[in-house]
Amino acid sequence: MHLQAHAANEAPSLSERFAAVRDRTLALCAPLEIEDYGLQSSDFVSPPKWHLAHTTWFFETFILLPYAPGYQVFHPAYAHLFNSYYETAGTFYPRPQRGWLSRPTVAEVKRYRAHVDAEMRNLLRQLPGAHEHDIVSRVTLGIEHEIQHQELLLMDTHYNLAHNPLHPAYQAPVHIMGNVPGVLTWSAYRGGLSAIGHAGEGFCFDNERPRHQVLLRDFRLANRLITNGEYLDFITDGGYQRAELWLSDGWQQVKARNWNAPLYWQQDADGWQRFTLSGLQPLDLHQPVANLSYLEADAYARWAGKRLPTEAEWEHAAASLALSDSFLESGTLQAQAATGQGLTQMFGELWQWTQSPYTAYPGFHPLPGTLGEYNGKFMSDQWVLRGGSCLTPEAHLRATYRNFFRAADRWMYSGLRLAEDA
Amino acid sequence: MHLQAHAANEAPSLSERFAAVRDRTLALCAPLEIEDYGLQSSDFVSPPKWHLAHTTWFFETFILLPYAPGYQVFHPAYAHLFNSYYETAGTFYPRPQRGWLSRPTVAEVKRYRAHVDAEMRNLLRQLPGAHEHDIVSRVTLGIEHEIQHQELLLMDTHYNLAHNPLHPAYQAPVHIMGNVPGVLTWSAYRGGLSAIGHAGEGFCFDNERPRHQVLLRDFRLANRLITNGEYLDFITDGGYQRAELWLSDGWQQVKARNWNAPLYWQQDADGWQRFTLSGLQPLDLHQPVANLSYLEADAYARWAGKRLPTEAEWEHAAASLALSDSFLESGTLQAQAATGQGLTQMFGELWQWTQSPYTAYPGFHPLPGTLGEYNGKFMSDQWVLRGGSCLTPEAHLRATYRNFFRAADRWMYSGLRLAEDA
Amino acid sequence: MHLQAHAANEAPSLSERFAAVRDRTLALCAPLEIEDYGLQSSDFVSPPKWHLAHTTWFFETFILLPYAPGYQVFHPAYAHLFNSYYETAGTFYPRPQRGWLSRPTVAEVKRYRAHVDAEMRNLLRQLPGAHEHDIVSRVTLGIEHEIQHQELLLMDTHYNLAHNPLHPAYQAPVHIMGNVPGVLTWSAYRGGLSAIGHAGEGFCFDNERPRHQVLLRDFRLANRLITNGEYLDFITDGGYQRAELWLSDGWQQVKARNWNAPLYWQQDADGWQRFTLSGLQPLDLHQPVANLSYLEADAYARWAGKRLPTEAEWEHAAASLALSDSFLESGTLQAQAATGQGLTQMFGELWQWTQSPYTAYPGFHPLPGTLGEYNGKFMSDQWVLRGGSCLTPEAHLRATYRNFFRAADRWMYSGLRLAEDA
Amino acid sequence: MHLQAHAANEAPSLSERFAAVRDRTLALCAPLEIEDYGLQSSDFVSPPKWHLAHTTWFFETFILLPYAPGYQVFHPAYAHLFNSYYETAGTFYPRPQRGWLSRPTVAEVKRYRAHVDAEMRNLLRQLPGAHEHDIVSRVTLGIEHEIQHQELLLMDTHYNLAHNPLHPAYQAPVHIMGNVPGVLTWSAYRGGLSAIGHAGEGFCFDNERPRHQVLLRDFRLANRLITNGEYLDFITDGGYQRAELWLSDGWQQVKARNWNAPLYWQQDADGWQRFTLSGLQPLDLHQPVANLSYLEADAYARWAGKRLPTEAEWEHAAASLALSDSFLESGTLQAQAATGQGLTQMFGELWQWTQSPYTAYPGFHPLPGTLGEYNGKFMSDQWVLRGGSCLTPEAHLRATYRNFFRAADRWMYSGLRLAEDA
Repeated sequence: MHLQAHAANEAPSLSERFAAVRDRTLALCAPLEIEDYGLQSSDFVSPPKWHLAHTTWFFETFILLPYAPGYQVFHPAYAHLFNSYYETAGTFYPRPQRGWLSRPTVAEVKRYRAHVDAEMRNLLRQLPGAHEHDIVSRVTLGIEHEIQHQELLLMDTHYNLAHNPLHPAYQAPVHIMGNVPGVLTWSAYRGGLSAIGHAGEGFCFDNERPRHQVLLRDFRLANRLITNGEYLDFITDGGYQRAELWLSDGWQQVKARNWNAPLYWQQDADGWQRFTLSGLQPLDLHQPVANLSYLEADAYARWAGKRLPTEAEWEHAAASLALSDSFLESGTLQAQAATGQGLTQMFGELWQWTQSPYTAYPGFHPLPGTLGEYNGKFMSDQWVLRGGSCLTPEAHLRATYRNFFRAADRWMYSGLRLAEDA
Repeated sequence: MHLQAHAANEAPSLSERFAAVRDRTLALCAPLEIEDYGLQSSDFVSPPKWHLAHTTWFFETFILLPYAPGYQVFHPAYAHLFNSYYETAGTFYPRPQRGWLSRPTVAEVKRYRAHVDAEMRNLLRQLPGAHEHDIVSRVTLGIEHEIQHQELLLMDTHYNLAHNPLHPAYQAPVHIMGNVPGVLTWSAYRGGLSAIGHAGEGFCFDNERPRHQVLLRDFRLANRLITNGEYLDFITDGGYQRAELWLSDGWQQVKARNWNAPLYWQQDADGWQRFTLSGLQPLDLHQPVANLSYLEADAYARWAGKRLPTEAEWEHAAASLALSDSFLESGTLQAQAATGQGLTQMFGELWQWTQSPYTAYPGFHPLPGTLGEYNGKFMSDQWVLRGGSCLTPEAHLRATYRNFFRAADRWMYSGLRLAEDA
Repeated sequence: MHLQAHAANEAPSLSERFAAVRDRTLALCAPLEIEDYGLQSSDFVSPPKWHLAHTTWFFETFILLPYAPGYQVFHPAYAHLFNSYYETAGTFYPRPQRGWLSRPTVAEVKRYRAHVDAEMRNLLRQLPGAHEHDIVSRVTLGIEHEIQHQELLLMDTHYNLAHNPLHPAYQAPVHIMGNVPGVLTWSAYRGGLSAIGHAGEGFCFDNERPRHQVLLRDFRLANRLITNGEYLDFITDGGYQRAELWLSDGWQQVKARNWNAPLYWQQDADGWQRFTLSGLQPLDLHQPVANLSYLEADAYARWAGKRLPTEAEWEHAAASLALSDSFLESGTLQAQAATGQGLTQMFGELWQWTQSPYTAYPGFHPLPGTLGEYNGKFMSDQWVLRGGSCLTPEAHLRATYRNFFRAADRWMYSGLRLAEDA
Repeated sequence: MHLQAHAANEAPSLSERFAAVRDRTLALCAPLEIEDYGLQSSDFVSPPKWHLAHTTWFFETFILLPYAPGYQVFHPAYAHLFNSYYETAGTFYPRPQRGWLSRPTVAEVKRYRAHVDAEMRNLLRQLPGAHEHDIVSRVTLGIEHEIQHQELLLMDTHYNLAHNPLHPAYQAPVHIMGNVPGVLTWSAYRGGLSAIGHAGEGFCFDNERPRHQVLLRDFRLANRLITNGEYLDFITDGGYQRAELWLSDGWQQVKARNWNAPLYWQQDADGWQRFTLSGLQPLDLHQPVANLSYLEADAYARWAGKRLPTEAEWEHAAASLALSDSFLESGTLQAQAATGQGLTQMFGELWQWTQSPYTAYPGFHPLPGTLGEYNGKFMSDQWVLRGGSCLTPEAHLRATYRNFFRAADRWMYSGLRLAEDA
């Protein structure tokens, strides 16, 4: 897969960014068979077709309907079918049954997209002055929203294909640079007051605000992510058999789901294999370990005598770094082995579990109205991940970005960086 | 849909019958979108694509592999993916997850069919003398097996599409003859010894054998099926609210699943509608009531002061009748209202619940080997239905045919004929 | 435990029989600790205290309230708490939660019993002429009902105690006669018309009526029940690992519940043990195998190349036999090894699975009113057992008696007798 | 219930404290019927008898076995039966089945207690010098552990009795002082660095350590808990029907469990009632609202335009307060209405939800060995409550105490205090 990054000298306009993100969603679907678009192999994944339609519904509902005079919805039932979870925007079709919607067909969903895109282009060409600010805000949010669904679409596709005994690949095997990571080293940080969270003009989600002071203690951060080889040591040392290494919730999962390795690992006569978007491959010991739950990351850290970083520690360390790792644009869809000196793999590669539950920043206010449901209502019993992954486009990321998942989730591109008290 | 019945003067050869049934399966799929082929909206239905592949696997496994010298399987994983439930034929992919198999694609499954069809044609062209009898028996069984799956494919498609709020139709609305059934009348039969079950040369399933004597008491059989209008009277009279009308198992289902009408009925501002393979339609009060469970049929009969027939009574009455109702060949895919005198709607239209649990006939022996799993192992806690439906091709039916489902099943084309003691 | 059988020269009066059965229920509870009375270790068992109260409610509801002028209920909430499943008698407390009712206490329930018993004695002393027949019928039914609950109380207590790792015994070990059963032999019967079902004056349940003709084929019946030793041969021969021996429903249970032996068997370093009402004991190879499901009985028969008898065959053979085996009165609460010639172990010892689903006899009519719910509404997906067990008092049994359970049930005292075609 | 508080002039010795806590556990059980001791009406509650035994097992396992030379366990199976969740201490009997253990009987468990108490007295009389410090630490922990189980025992008993339609009372109605709380007022606190957590010599749990600095912003704390009357306003205003007031997890619970009021509230013809340990009583509008989940507390706060306090804010405000509200010693087992000026109801009455997920303090280290499982392994997806309740003895509480439950739990004595940004 080759995804052209924007390479102009000047920043793209909102229209251009809108067009680019909409095109990329379709480009990401190009390797799929029609049969793949409807797949939903678990309650927590959505069919690719549903992602195509839902992101379109987002623009239709939050921008065209309120701001495009005379806009006619493409189909009256789609508000019900493609609303995800916005309770105040009406009813929605049950999430676990999204895979039952063979209709609308892929072709029809693409017509829906084309219809909305055309109307959006019209609107963006001549922004109504009275609502310009709102429209720009919402289109920007819609673009970032669609990028999030691009990553979900790939995660979900990975998960769906993994359940097929034929091991179908989303894309051909890619060339992974054969870096050999060095021994784990530590970057030290002094404690004290530090500010985290987003401020200023650029886009951010409401949950990154307000910027506020936090109190840090002296800490050290591992210079790179834990590798598959290092994680294999944990397994070999009985990691999945020793209750004392686990949170109680973790040990329950280990027993209930028979966990004995991260998601997508399987052991056969040829040793450990890993199912990737390029199909089943021998486990690469140098790549960072991916697709593990918070519960596994926590157990590994306890086994290693370390801990996970807090999100404040992570952001403090990341704030001054330039984004420089592998993103979606690389096309590999796999995290690369670490290379280089200093703090590496902070952005791209894999989202990094923190030990911070996902809660509101002090003074947090969700967006007004229905869009306030975007982030705020999920602030219970989820955990923050930071940094981005090889499925995330570079422009989507920043040091203040807060991703969040359940402690037992494993299908996102999550990885593990250690921390310790200084 | 128009399905050409065989119209030759002479009986078709085995090769011709094989080719015809294989073609008809594909013809039945013609109205489907690619997206529909993978749908599985419940554990008990299978995706159309799976039916296409499984029926092919049946010929490959039970005929080509043992009898076609040097036959190479099309794909080594298909034995696992497309075995349904034959424990002695190897492992099988979990039934509830058949909808997760986006691959092989529809196109690939059609290639699989073409591959097996070609090999079958070769084999049938020159039957190896030593095994001729076995091959003919098994091909005949394979043909009848595929016919059963054609009916399943349509039932399953009906069920799948019913879960889509868009109410997609499998075919355009069909012309249903507007018969107005007369008042219910009764045909009387004298008791005594009677023989049921299959004997002689023609094909039958093992569960129809051996022909044996049964003792009947005087009984009467209703001349036609109960209509939607008559069933509506039961509903209006509080049928779904009165525990005393129901078997204990039935009342549990009513409460647990909130049953208040047969499957596919829904009440809206315009009154009762029914979802059919031609989409949502106003309930036709003259058509026979369809898609009800044994538990509902039994409750209706109790409410009416009657009972359901035993399978022996049904067969005794049907034995002398010619097949003369609506079958798959009519293309309506809906049961027609009754017309005419005497005992009507005995074949075609709708399968008819009997009060007989599905058990072995005295002296029953299943087929030898793996094919013995075809029928015998299901002889517990299922109930016999007789007669056939408008989804069944005429040639598939005979008076001795025993269909069977669970008491709470409703997605097959089941109907209800009353009986009473004389 | 020693339970005094009635030994008078003349038949006891209804009052005497009422008093005797009420006393015996309490006597059966004597070995229990207060803590045992409230136990419910599965949805399908009931706490002993609940049996004590429910049988009392039966007399209160169906006899005292309609026929004892001015009768005041003992407690207004008990109609809700102690109705079992009579939908037309009002609401009932959820069955799976019977174990949550610490109140009324055991002492209070005994007061409830005493209250109802006193009122019943008054009523029976001077039967109101107008309702004499109804009262006698209902009291007789109430007595038989309480006897059934005595057996349930012991079955449930067995099941409850079995879940306690301390292996508590209901009673001290009993002396079991060390019979050594001879080799299995067969009694042959000629086919033809035979009558089964109850006729005449004595008590029977509605489901034993009407007496009617059935058509039998020549058959043979094993002279005794299958022993633990014989069943162990089935296990040793891979019985629980060979899918081809099982009904599909059976194989599902084997896998889902990890069945590898009958209920209450466990294998440890000392070999096979069996948990009995006298605690854990070494498996006695000569005793008949007990506590197996229909699905296991059926698999054993298939493995042995035989089949289970039909209920008509069983009754035909049993009709002329005197009751002569071990009943509740023996106090052993264990089935004895067979001894003697000819057809043995037909009554008492263990209920015997038949291959007959539990359905209505032709012409069956349930009792009128609420008592019609006693038997008829359970006529779906259950199977008939015949003969009685060592938990059943002798006077409760007769050749026409039809017991019934689900195919997967194992906690009743069920056993296995083989049959074959002649 | 009257529970004598310790009233001596000098601090009680460890032996005295041990004896007092052991006695009080039995005293708390005095109102129970034998039948109540085995009740377990949900997976998350334990039978009172189990609490009696488990607290005894704790002393036996962690003190007598390692430190009392030659100690013989009372019963070899109790280690399995009465271990709660200490994975590294051996196997344990399944928690959801604790209600199935009719044996050991209550009398036997009391013998177990007496046996261990006697051995403990011996040990405490002559502490072996080498282990004195460890023993004192562990006995102290065992005492606090038993106090926690006293509160659980009362919570669980409340829950168990609530499921009985007879509404049995644990104790007679108590006199509740009829305070009328004034209008809600606010105490303001200045932000800055503050220290929370335990330091120094007195007992605390490992999760209260280490004392560390936190950064607070200016905030205000409501002077009292929210009352039933105020919570009723939320209900009347559609609180349980308005999705926008709820966290996503909360709204799911509302729909899945049909929540429409706090636990133990019920509405009948006489208006709102509340089931208390003194039975069903009219809802007292002045008492603080109790038995609500985090999800409900959070929704109320959002509706009120406020928020919940963080645990650091709570502790900062509470640190300088003397304990002065109603504790277990009052014997009311109900929270009293607020009275007085300033910050009230901070200790006793009801545990107070904070918006803080339960996580490790920076530098946290669990106790060594098996006792390290006491608190640390539960640090995921639970929430901190502070302050104590009317079921907690006063001596058990302190400002640094961290209680924790799941967001959806409601059976503990939880209440709700609001906070807001200054």
